[in-house]
Amino acid sequence: MACPAVVEEVPEKHCWVCFATEREDVLAEWVNPCRCKGCTKWIHQSCLQRWLDEKQKVNSGGPVNCPQCGTEYRIVFPKMGPLVYSLQHVDKTISRVSPFAAVGVVVGTVYWSAVTYGAVTVMQVVGHKKGLSIMERADPLFLLMGLPTIPVMLVLGKMIHWEDYIVRLWHRYSGLQIRGRPMRRVPLEGTLTRDHLSVSRTLCGALIFPSVASLVGRLLFQRFPSSLQRTVLGGIAFLLIKGTLKVYFKQQQYLIQTNRQILNYPEGNGESERDGGSQRGEEYAEDSE
Amino acid sequence: MACPAVVEEVPEKHCWVCFATEREDVLAEWVNPCRCKGCTKWIHQSCLQRWLDEKQKVNSGGPVNCPQCGTEYRIVFPKMGPLVYSLQHVDKTISRVSPFAAVGVVVGTVYWSAVTYGAVTVMQVVGHKKGLSIMERADPLFLLMGLPTIPVMLVLGKMIHWEDYIVRLWHRYSGLQIRGRPMRRVPLEGTLTRDHLSVSRTLCGALIFPSVASLVGRLLFQRFPSSLQRTVLGGIAFLLIKGTLKVYFKQQQYLIQTNRQILNYPEGNGESERDGGSQRGEEYAEDSE
Repeated sequence: MACPAVVEEVPEKHCWVCFATEREDVLAEWVNPCRCKGCTKWIHQSCLQRWLDEKQKVNSGGPVNCPQCGTEYRIVFPKMGPLVYSLQHVDKTISRVSPFAAVGVVVGTVYWSAVTYGAVTVMQVVGHKKGLSIMERADPLFLLMGLPTIPVMLVLGKMIHWEDYIVRLWHRYSGLQIRGRPMRRVPLEGTLTRDHLSVSRTLCGALIFPSVASLVGRLLFQRFPSSLQRTVLGGIAFLLIKGTLKVYFKQQQYLIQTNRQILNYPEGNGESERDGGSQRGEEYAEDSE
Repeated sequence: MACPAVVEEVPEKHCWVCFATEREDVLAEWVNPCRCKGCTKWIHQSCLQRWLDEKQKVNSGGPVNCPQCGTEYRIVFPKMGPLVYSLQHVDKTISRVSPFAAVGVVVGTVYWSAVTYGAVTVMQVVGHKKGLSIMERADPLFLLMGLPTIPVMLVLGKMIHWEDYIVRLWHRYSGLQIRGRPMRRVPLEGTLTRDHLSVSRTLCGALIFPSVASLVGRLLFQRFPSSLQRTVLGGIAFLLIKGTLKVYFKQQQYLIQTNRQILNYPEGNGESERDGGSQRGEEYAEDSE
């Protein structure tokens, strides 16, 4: 901003935003909101208001200081009536409470679905009619507490990776001899246990388990008359089959990692030999020993 | 790595990881995995495997190159049996499908809660017994489609901020004269419409509306025998009362923003005068005109 040399004694007001002087707009309201002297002392009230609006877009409603001398502008508002004051209070309270209420809605949604899932599972396990009659006779409080624990227990149960313990025990007691020859190396832990981190897989596996147990029960244990017996046996059978396959699979993965081999660079060299990588699988039989 | 000058002719193998030579460990397996010549040509198979494990911790399973010549190491694995192969395929498929299944679980949870909420709302609006009998007689498919639309419609309805339109219309047709004197300024749009962004407030307000309508109906319209009539009238009454208060509140907020005033810096200056900010409210009456 160019500041005219004649400042003191008869200072003509001069707005540092629009550069207009007192003579150019006689009616305009002037304000000197800060400790600035000289050519940045005066500003139009309306120019400062506009400038303040722009500033407060960023720090909505916070204090604004003079960019030159740093004085905080003193902004006053007309007094609120008691109704407006209480409405503002109500508005603020609602704004403060509503996030917690929304969390409550989400928790309620999850809880209610867990109750429903629990009820459906009970009917699936003991049979539709018997399940209904059991739940009708039971204490409602017990149902509201007990039914949601069913999916929780299923998920917690799914988080026990018992197959891994068996694989680890197997490794410990089989020693370092596998198929009679010394093991090349022990692979890093992380490479084999990556799937534990999948939340979605744990959740889905846990929630689908009763249906699978019921299905396996109906397929393998038809001669049992009771739906409960069939489902429990089906669940145990499924767990055993799946566990066995998983232990076998993990053990094979472990062996594959253990017997990984890095090949010599093909000595004939040149570009033609570098394509030989596609025959890696075949080369291995000769190369691995 | 210090590389001995004698390299060609009778090159003694020399591992560039553990610095051991051929004579130090006669049984160790050697590999020259890349185009490197000289002292970085040879490495122990076991040393390279360890080094590879460290590298693959970061880019799990990806290709690894020689840090010197950039040749990609050729890593081979023993061939998998058909069972392991298919197990791996199943494992990968489950890992790929489970995120979608988990999304399905979440959607199902929300859907089921919406159905339940819809059913509770129907019973709240038309009365418990009548609601139950209506839903028992209705087509199940219609219920499964119709009931979840109730909370959806409530939320969509809550998103229509009709009070704002009224406030805006009021401003447009009242012109720039408010209470007989010209308006100081027009506040920025953003400062008054901030609460629209609150998702939690919209959600909670929408979901609590039927309960509030039912309550207001029971309080104000006791003489109506039908629960449906009471609730509908209660809802309308609540919307009108709330809307009127909101329009009034927004209008007052608008006026407060419009008549914001920035004060002159107290001329007596010095530190003592700067505390005068606490009396801003009182000063305004004299200062605002």
